Amino acid sequence: MKERLQDLERLRVEALDSILGKPFRVLDDGFIRVIDYMGTDASIVQAARVAYGEGTKKRRQDEELIRYLMRHRHTSPFEMCEIKLHLRVPMDTWRQWIRHRTANVNEYSTRYSIAIDAAYATDPGAWRTQSASNRQGSAGFLPPETGRLLSERERELQETARSVYQERLEAGVAREQARKDLPLCTYTEAYWKIDLKNLLNFLALRMEAHAQEEIRAYATIIGEEIVSRWCPDTWKAFRDYTMESLTFSPVEQGILAALLAGDRDAAIAAAETGGWLPRREGALTFHLERYEFENKCGRLGIAPPWM
Amino acid sequence: MKERLQDLERLRVEALDSILGKPFRVLDDGFIRVIDYMGTDASIVQAARVAYGEGTKKRRQDEELIRYLMRHRHTSPFEMCEIKLHLRVPMDTWRQWIRHRTANVNEYSTRYSIAIDAAYATDPGAWRTQSASNRQGSAGFLPPETGRLLSERERELQETARSVYQERLEAGVAREQARKDLPLCTYTEAYWKIDLKNLLNFLALRMEAHAQEEIRAYATIIGEEIVSRWCPDTWKAFRDYTMESLTFSPVEQGILAALLAGDRDAAIAAAETGGWLPRREGALTFHLERYEFENKCGRLGIAPPWM
Amino acid sequence: MKERLQDLERLRVEALDSILGKPFRVLDDGFIRVIDYMGTDASIVQAARVAYGEGTKKRRQDEELIRYLMRHRHTSPFEMCEIKLHLRVPMDTWRQWIRHRTANVNEYSTRYSIAIDAAYATDPGAWRTQSASNRQGSAGFLPPETGRLLSERERELQETARSVYQERLEAGVAREQARKDLPLCTYTEAYWKIDLKNLLNFLALRMEAHAQEEIRAYATIIGEEIVSRWCPDTWKAFRDYTMESLTFSPVEQGILAALLAGDRDAAIAAAETGGWLPRREGALTFHLERYEFENKCGRLGIAPPWM
Amino acid sequence: MKERLQDLERLRVEALDSILGKPFRVLDDGFIRVIDYMGTDASIVQAARVAYGEGTKKRRQDEELIRYLMRHRHTSPFEMCEIKLHLRVPMDTWRQWIRHRTANVNEYSTRYSIAIDAAYATDPGAWRTQSASNRQGSAGFLPPETGRLLSERERELQETARSVYQERLEAGVAREQARKDLPLCTYTEAYWKIDLKNLLNFLALRMEAHAQEEIRAYATIIGEEIVSRWCPDTWKAFRDYTMESLTFSPVEQGILAALLAGDRDAAIAAAETGGWLPRREGALTFHLERYEFENKCGRLGIAPPWM
Repeated sequence: MKERLQDLERLRVEALDSILGKPFRVLDDGFIRVIDYMGTDASIVQAARVAYGEGTKKRRQDEELIRYLMRHRHTSPFEMCEIKLHLRVPMDTWRQWIRHRTANVNEYSTRYSIAIDAAYATDPGAWRTQSASNRQGSAGFLPPETGRLLSERERELQETARSVYQERLEAGVAREQARKDLPLCTYTEAYWKIDLKNLLNFLALRMEAHAQEEIRAYATIIGEEIVSRWCPDTWKAFRDYTMESLTFSPVEQGILAALLAGDRDAAIAAAETGGWLPRREGALTFHLERYEFENKCGRLGIAPPWM
Repeated sequence: MKERLQDLERLRVEALDSILGKPFRVLDDGFIRVIDYMGTDASIVQAARVAYGEGTKKRRQDEELIRYLMRHRHTSPFEMCEIKLHLRVPMDTWRQWIRHRTANVNEYSTRYSIAIDAAYATDPGAWRTQSASNRQGSAGFLPPETGRLLSERERELQETARSVYQERLEAGVAREQARKDLPLCTYTEAYWKIDLKNLLNFLALRMEAHAQEEIRAYATIIGEEIVSRWCPDTWKAFRDYTMESLTFSPVEQGILAALLAGDRDAAIAAAETGGWLPRREGALTFHLERYEFENKCGRLGIAPPWM
Repeated sequence: MKERLQDLERLRVEALDSILGKPFRVLDDGFIRVIDYMGTDASIVQAARVAYGEGTKKRRQDEELIRYLMRHRHTSPFEMCEIKLHLRVPMDTWRQWIRHRTANVNEYSTRYSIAIDAAYATDPGAWRTQSASNRQGSAGFLPPETGRLLSERERELQETARSVYQERLEAGVAREQARKDLPLCTYTEAYWKIDLKNLLNFLALRMEAHAQEEIRAYATIIGEEIVSRWCPDTWKAFRDYTMESLTFSPVEQGILAALLAGDRDAAIAAAETGGWLPRREGALTFHLERYEFENKCGRLGIAPPWM
Repeated sequence: MKERLQDLERLRVEALDSILGKPFRVLDDGFIRVIDYMGTDASIVQAARVAYGEGTKKRRQDEELIRYLMRHRHTSPFEMCEIKLHLRVPMDTWRQWIRHRTANVNEYSTRYSIAIDAAYATDPGAWRTQSASNRQGSAGFLPPETGRLLSERERELQETARSVYQERLEAGVAREQARKDLPLCTYTEAYWKIDLKNLLNFLALRMEAHAQEEIRAYATIIGEEIVSRWCPDTWKAFRDYTMESLTFSPVEQGILAALLAGDRDAAIAAAETGGWLPRREGALTFHLERYEFENKCGRLGIAPPWM
């Protein structure tokens, strides 16, 4: 392998270099900027090939290799890429963000410095209603006349909270204590550095339909504007094999197998055996896993056999 | 080693079992409770002895071994103990807490449920003034008449914020959005599980004099009420070799060596060589590292030679 | 929530307590023993419920909740359970094991102590042939007469290696250096402590058909003998939603949708569009992803449409 | 802070770029090469300043800030730098290396490929004797005539092991099984990527006098040849505040305080109170912590008061 020991230059990605430092705007006053990065699709291939004891191959084979690694969850080569972002984000979004523990973080300190004078404000048309079907989600918007009242109250509250903060500072209260009643949606800033494998885990959870709208806005920009430029082969494989894949449990496989064999009764029987068809007074009652499968049926263009 | 393969019972700590589930109160409405734990001082010894290929020894030797491991930063055996706590803590304290990434966490969700109806309130006599010497700290208290005004304003703001939150919920706003202007000091709850090595790291940083008072209150209870009961030998070694130890850099060693040799001029010369004695118009100007050493001199009962 | 603050006792699992310390034998001289554990299925439910702000529910609902968490990869509650094992394992198996970084480890030290006098020996009938289709796998066995020769040579080599080790020790060579030519399959021992989430990741990778036989033997015992006793609901959900699930990419979904619609030509067209049907001189050539899909077809009881 | 959002170029370090890809030779057939890196001293400063809400300052202040962060164990800004190395290292050294869990790793696979045809060989003059005082260390060398015999036996054993490996492959044994009796010191290769904070932890443990000579050889090159070029201010601060610092426990502080006050009797009394002066028949017996302090006395140029 000694012939491989030639001098090197750092790998660069033209498409990412051209946006380095430029802010992508998010929400009313947030942003994401790429500060630095290490590696690219080629680094993933290189790391996999050291394992295989192999050298350089053709472009097409590199892409196939990346797709293979992604499909089979051989995730360690994706750790060989690293990216550093500069973020400006409301603290209540940041509270969700920071739950991803495998990143390096330096956040703006409101112990050391005056808090950023900006809180995330809601447009009158942007007040979301509580989802009935999903206890932790939202669905649709409140009517604009209600929204106007809510936005006006929000503005007043944020101004009051800021005044109280200023009063405290002027009275000589320590910054670490003065900040305590700022709204959760006060903006903060941070450097956030993470490897590509863990970034993809973050995106899988935060670009997903159940993630809260605000963090989804950030995650979508990271995915579609940044990772897509940085590691395009990986991004495509991630979409195919993670974001847009469908997974079926043994009960679901049984139903699918029956349907593929053209046996609708057997499909219903498989669901029955799985306990999926509880009834009250003859009518099917709600069953979460069945409901989830019905959504997958939509993706496959079929009607559930019990409907 | 086969004779070691006898049946086992789980190790228990009487002193910890007796407080399991009982809340230690912190701040005005917070608490810490031990929910479960695994291992004790004996588990640390056992893990170290598997490395050494040795079996059980005497009580005294166990304590010596723990002290040796702590002193020499052989930290992996301390990972063999694990503890799970139930916490109730203001979110702005939790923001600092969660920066310790090597723990397992499940936090109360204000997307899924109504936010806890309690915010951390400040007594009139508890408003701290900004420290002049330490940009991120506090020092002393504001006079009570100022404190009364600040506490009154705090109460009003917290009530307003809670009203706005209620209005939003009543208008049908999704919980995930309604919460956005709650004060940072709103209480949250969490289960927090961590191994003893990483817990000691947490305590070293958060029981320390520069940590913010609120998190120090929690950390001190974890250390003095919980770890001291759970792993008493480890707790004692941690105090001796981490919390109460003093560390000296090469420049400081040079000064100490000169002082021990009774040569005050050589001590001053060592400080001078280290660049510690900058002067303006003949008078010493501030030098941070010298200032820190002067504090250590206090611990050793001597006056700095340049004073 | 204050009514929840009652005293507690540690959760116990009868079925696990009854095997504590008992070795499960693996390979010719290896074992796995449970030393200690924390938590059980109920702890996972409890951690999820703190997030939901809810208390105790019925047994049946607990199981449903665990299945829901597993199905939707809400993995953090599974981190609330922790287990500690004592292992005896050949070093070349341990080399694969230790790649799982999210565990706590204390290994027997051959710097400090004499190496364990046992190397993993291969029965004449247990020599596996190199797999042709899988570059990193094995398939079938060599004939016993070849095996006898190989086992005899193995025995000689292991004896020679041990003699050389002894000679070095007798000559006064430091243990840390004397060990350097011991065979990779020399046994070692370790304590290994890990949370349930990360243990399931380990099992998903190491019980899998492509894992090397030796580590699969250990992983299978951990899963089927230990986790199944410790957290039976979790174990069942893990089997259904991870081990035995099938995942389909967008191309595969297109093929399945066409087959479910009874349109074989459209299914072939979908594969063609995905680039899955490369031909040389009219005949299909090998295509890895198509091959993988053909295996999934077997699980669904259908023939691939292009066959 | 908006004025800070200018376009960026990646930070480069001239001194590191000039050695990119060049192997530093270690042991008889090992090497270390830098493959890529992200960040430099300036990135650490930048990360700390986002916390402080401050911008660019003078060179001298940057160095002071890095020294402050290192001295006070504010380690998170050091995580903002990342480096990727290509290593060739004997497997028994790699076994120690891989215990550092906070790194990204891709290792050459001997399941997938033929094992590297090189094992670490020992020169006749390089056989180390077992340390009497340190159970896990070595001290001095065996005489060359003994060494010659040992090296000859080593050569034979390594050749035999390699022959057996070849025989197995030729007989059709799967690579994953054929490798099982290779010597522990067979060379392997890996990509190893780690952030600067965790790299410094690695160096603190592996450049240290008690680390085994082989891994110390690698660690010393990483420190003195690579980190010193990459982040020179950090490297200097690390040497001053970690590698060359001295730490004193409360008992040691008591002894030092007495000595600084010129009171030798009080110093002896402090040691006595700490239980450091056990005697048998009038003579001091061995006491580990006292012995360690005596070594520190040497660093401070004084004799222990009880000698």
